[in-house]
Amino acid sequence: MCGILMAMTIRVGVAGCTGYAGGEALRLLLGHPEVEIGTLSAGASAGSTLGTQQPHLRPLADRRIAETSAAELATNDVVIMALPHATSGPIAAELPDDVAVIDCGADFRLADAEDWEKFYRTPHAGTWPYGLPELPGQREKLTGTRRVAVPGCYPTSVTLALLPGLVHGVIDGSDVVVVAASGPSGAGKAAKPHLLGAELMGSASAYGVGGVHRHVPEILQNFRTLGAVDPSVSFTPVLVPMPRGILATCTAPLAAEVDAAEVQRIWTETYADEPFITVLPPDQWPQTQYVTGANAAHIQVTVDTAAHRVVAVAAIDNLTKGTAGAAVQCLNLAMGLPETTGLPVVGVAP
Amino acid sequence: MCGILMAMTIRVGVAGCTGYAGGEALRLLLGHPEVEIGTLSAGASAGSTLGTQQPHLRPLADRRIAETSAAELATNDVVIMALPHATSGPIAAELPDDVAVIDCGADFRLADAEDWEKFYRTPHAGTWPYGLPELPGQREKLTGTRRVAVPGCYPTSVTLALLPGLVHGVIDGSDVVVVAASGPSGAGKAAKPHLLGAELMGSASAYGVGGVHRHVPEILQNFRTLGAVDPSVSFTPVLVPMPRGILATCTAPLAAEVDAAEVQRIWTETYADEPFITVLPPDQWPQTQYVTGANAAHIQVTVDTAAHRVVAVAAIDNLTKGTAGAAVQCLNLAMGLPETTGLPVVGVAP
Amino acid sequence: MCGILMAMTIRVGVAGCTGYAGGEALRLLLGHPEVEIGTLSAGASAGSTLGTQQPHLRPLADRRIAETSAAELATNDVVIMALPHATSGPIAAELPDDVAVIDCGADFRLADAEDWEKFYRTPHAGTWPYGLPELPGQREKLTGTRRVAVPGCYPTSVTLALLPGLVHGVIDGSDVVVVAASGPSGAGKAAKPHLLGAELMGSASAYGVGGVHRHVPEILQNFRTLGAVDPSVSFTPVLVPMPRGILATCTAPLAAEVDAAEVQRIWTETYADEPFITVLPPDQWPQTQYVTGANAAHIQVTVDTAAHRVVAVAAIDNLTKGTAGAAVQCLNLAMGLPETTGLPVVGVAP
Amino acid sequence: MCGILMAMTIRVGVAGCTGYAGGEALRLLLGHPEVEIGTLSAGASAGSTLGTQQPHLRPLADRRIAETSAAELATNDVVIMALPHATSGPIAAELPDDVAVIDCGADFRLADAEDWEKFYRTPHAGTWPYGLPELPGQREKLTGTRRVAVPGCYPTSVTLALLPGLVHGVIDGSDVVVVAASGPSGAGKAAKPHLLGAELMGSASAYGVGGVHRHVPEILQNFRTLGAVDPSVSFTPVLVPMPRGILATCTAPLAAEVDAAEVQRIWTETYADEPFITVLPPDQWPQTQYVTGANAAHIQVTVDTAAHRVVAVAAIDNLTKGTAGAAVQCLNLAMGLPETTGLPVVGVAP
Repeated sequence: MCGILMAMTIRVGVAGCTGYAGGEALRLLLGHPEVEIGTLSAGASAGSTLGTQQPHLRPLADRRIAETSAAELATNDVVIMALPHATSGPIAAELPDDVAVIDCGADFRLADAEDWEKFYRTPHAGTWPYGLPELPGQREKLTGTRRVAVPGCYPTSVTLALLPGLVHGVIDGSDVVVVAASGPSGAGKAAKPHLLGAELMGSASAYGVGGVHRHVPEILQNFRTLGAVDPSVSFTPVLVPMPRGILATCTAPLAAEVDAAEVQRIWTETYADEPFITVLPPDQWPQTQYVTGANAAHIQVTVDTAAHRVVAVAAIDNLTKGTAGAAVQCLNLAMGLPETTGLPVVGVAP
Repeated sequence: MCGILMAMTIRVGVAGCTGYAGGEALRLLLGHPEVEIGTLSAGASAGSTLGTQQPHLRPLADRRIAETSAAELATNDVVIMALPHATSGPIAAELPDDVAVIDCGADFRLADAEDWEKFYRTPHAGTWPYGLPELPGQREKLTGTRRVAVPGCYPTSVTLALLPGLVHGVIDGSDVVVVAASGPSGAGKAAKPHLLGAELMGSASAYGVGGVHRHVPEILQNFRTLGAVDPSVSFTPVLVPMPRGILATCTAPLAAEVDAAEVQRIWTETYADEPFITVLPPDQWPQTQYVTGANAAHIQVTVDTAAHRVVAVAAIDNLTKGTAGAAVQCLNLAMGLPETTGLPVVGVAP
Repeated sequence: MCGILMAMTIRVGVAGCTGYAGGEALRLLLGHPEVEIGTLSAGASAGSTLGTQQPHLRPLADRRIAETSAAELATNDVVIMALPHATSGPIAAELPDDVAVIDCGADFRLADAEDWEKFYRTPHAGTWPYGLPELPGQREKLTGTRRVAVPGCYPTSVTLALLPGLVHGVIDGSDVVVVAASGPSGAGKAAKPHLLGAELMGSASAYGVGGVHRHVPEILQNFRTLGAVDPSVSFTPVLVPMPRGILATCTAPLAAEVDAAEVQRIWTETYADEPFITVLPPDQWPQTQYVTGANAAHIQVTVDTAAHRVVAVAAIDNLTKGTAGAAVQCLNLAMGLPETTGLPVVGVAP
Repeated sequence: MCGILMAMTIRVGVAGCTGYAGGEALRLLLGHPEVEIGTLSAGASAGSTLGTQQPHLRPLADRRIAETSAAELATNDVVIMALPHATSGPIAAELPDDVAVIDCGADFRLADAEDWEKFYRTPHAGTWPYGLPELPGQREKLTGTRRVAVPGCYPTSVTLALLPGLVHGVIDGSDVVVVAASGPSGAGKAAKPHLLGAELMGSASAYGVGGVHRHVPEILQNFRTLGAVDPSVSFTPVLVPMPRGILATCTAPLAAEVDAAEVQRIWTETYADEPFITVLPPDQWPQTQYVTGANAAHIQVTVDTAAHRVVAVAAIDNLTKGTAGAAVQCLNLAMGLPETTGLPVVGVAP
């Protein structure tokens, strides 16, 4: 039996191995029992060894980084793409159909080409199965697939926070307000002055305010998937001084006369069988520290009776459940493995 | 003329001098040209010198701390009270009427005794002039007064963010949603496990969710003052890893068909003469670093057309414009000094 | 063979399960393939469920916490003790000899009773095999043992940084100087004002300066073990704003005319077979982020020719290789398992 | 008298107004009673307004930024230069002799051209009076001067920490060891990947290890000024997650048989008349939070009897006493004003 398992070892390449998402994917893959790590590729860093770029990935320190190209990547069973937006499309197009491509970028997330072009200002590359297995019916669509569009980190947190309420009709999706505190690793490793440590430590700031953030159409698409008719979201991301993590505070008008106990029951029951989602016990509110490095979402929900709104808060690690952990979760589904294989659910706290 | 000014030097005592609010008041008073620092009082630390409690206040390091009592405090022209809630009332009651009492606590903020008792579960102490001079007509009420209730830090940030919209009728106060990121100094210096550095660094967490935070009735009271009929606010405070600062993201439904340029114009004009409020130029969003240690609020506003909401973001330092700076601003008004005397408006950034 | 392995599952209890060290031990044990988690015990929190105390340990959320007592703990094959200093001795004394006791506290680390009493001011409990397998010959002493004294976090970092130099006689142990930056989780979860987030964020501070820190005699004991005659260390811990991690900068006079390349060669060769120690390639210096949550030490070394000193820098996670990871490493040795079983070596970066 | 003072108002220009040092200089100058702010100049940002670059400097928000050139700067009484190393020399050479030039860069700090060329690899520009008035006899040299080389931030902290011991012959300067924790603002605002917030938050790292940091020759030069013969320093800077601040832990062998009380007496007496230096009371150790934004150094010292070393710890704000505050202090001396004019000594804590 061991021999059979070894024969089944899945070779996984990572394109964009020097960035934060690529590094997190490799960290998880190093702990994955059914995977061997294949091609490591990057852009400007091609030719150097991974140890100079990702000093924490000791077991891969001496691995040489290849140039990101379809030729290099086609030797793998699975390719996780952690590339800048609008760059994964052309490479994916050249990869054989039987190579599973799991794209952490935005290129294939949106079904609506007009939405894509409005927010990204490049031609729409297409639409792939959306890598959020917790959406109703989505797990089935991801099983055995060879193309996955991993969700954005903010849409994951917001969608998971509100999903039970939309599915069960207790919230109204037409006036959702979300403010999501986030660490800067989601913005990547490219050096920009406003992302300097001196700028961010000791400070909080909003950005992409007023409906202009690129994750807005993706959030609305998910709300529609969950049954919202003509959904609306006021979404404000707030950069705060922590390297990782998203805490999404999401409110929506009540669509039914439910109280706190009832929404907690609905949320808890909805996620009862989800291995990566925890609705916390009443009175415990999510903290990002508790999901650091884990493919987990912690959620709590209550009713603000006076404001006639549900308030749901979700904590995820933007690099894990928000990106690379979700990619591995989808890899498991795509390759017919148990969905939880190799994925930590316990955060590194404090 | 100098002689006359010296004769007018105002003796200011600080009750609760060992806490964060008391320390910030003293930092500001040390830079105030018309003030001499009088009684320093505290509870458990009485008898020690201030240098052991507030090492940054070097010029006062050798000053002995008295017990907080009306007898000790009555020797001052002004008393700034930075005490736990529900403790300033009894002391204030014993102070002479001509001593100006500026209370940083909540005791005298609320006009509605029922609101007070519901949120604080102690008897209502009364209502004093509310120390937010930027409210229409309020500056006049504070001039020469001998009793001031300094606003809470969250209500200050939220009220200032939305004031122009309420006053000018372009937002609807009946469905306001606020999420405010804050550092932990607002919670004071009492040692509690959930406020430990190891817990807070690297983590964001919501608390007081669902309308239960004590600042909710104060926010609603201010909205009513600004003309809102039957206001509502969904308010969620989020603790983030920075010692000081509040970034309040506030959204309200549009009550008029205005666009981003128009709301920016309204906000800018409303605050044109306010010395401590800056509506930033378009495209610049507030960051808490820029108001650290300053009696300043930075504000930006836009319209989310798709969500049919105004989004206004305000940054303040919770200890300065949020507490002790506001106290000094009110002291200036109460004592007939120019309102800006001794108050820094430039933050210590980065 | 699988059946045999299952029959060998080791039941591990954790005393002090609600603290940071206990929590980290449980995080690691949850990923350990040969372990089932037995008794969870604590002091004041006994009777509650673990989920209320350690929200990240989801798989154990519903486990009830027992009182810490020998009777409760005796049902386990191994007990990891993560208790305040001077409290593990009495309990350990009552546990059966065949229960492996792995003490994360200081009680049994020092061989010299006088040292113990001078620094801890309680009677000396005894001396157990010292849980630093990287010390020459120590691995053998730990194999199969039923009592282990896990090293202090600072001594681990300092000893690993300088070990190759002492063993190979290229540094002089009689005038070592160490300054170690550390996050506050090493100080535990007890609420003390100087450990509040508002105090620590944005600030660095030295403590225990001048040879008074309790880890000094342990460091010197290790230096003697490594061959130093009459060793001396000036040791200063510095608290910095990160939840976890120690970065120890260690300098010692040169005892031989070696250059940077030579010391790097010696350090690298000394640790060539150590699974948890990495001497980084030249020009890469350790960062604590790269060992967060990993049972790993990253080390770099050079020669300051002008100062005639070697400078070695070690990064560890104080809770992992510095405490709970070392405990599991020793558990593996004690129970005859491969030393690396269940221990992550890849940090959660950034 | 007021009229006379107004006539004496000093016009101060700042070259490099968009960086951290330039911004801090402007923050202090805005609070300086004898100064009006003259030319603001920069490189790439010339032509924009200051508000877009330094949002905290509200009173200067609309000021247009000029190109850095001698022609633009010559209109000022004083020019504070906050430019990259090796760029201030050529501009200074073209400025009239009666314009006071206060250079925050390194160009004119070193007396030894060989040292300069070894560490900076450009030709030596010359040597100006060194802007550390606390050095014996230095205050006099700075009074009325028209050229000042402001010290580096690390040399300031180290020199102030050890000065009393060197002057009084109680420490031996031939084997000093310093490890200095610092925030990243000292590295400036240029975007480099290793200075990203995601890299720095939650992590500590050493850099410039082994005697290669450019501040080493400046530290040694100061030690010689203080009487050390053939001094040596092992200097290691450590980047830690706080925006501002340096905590320098400095140890030196005892040169006399003194105890802790005696060194504390010597340090305290040495600095008794220094307005910006505080030797803390016994048992209080410096914390960077207490000097944030202040032109102040907090120092504590003790003896490690077993290690036969003095340990002195100094906390400064690298941007204030470490750079821009020192520049203003020197401006005061150069222009014949009281040395303390316009300089805050109280930090913004917490």
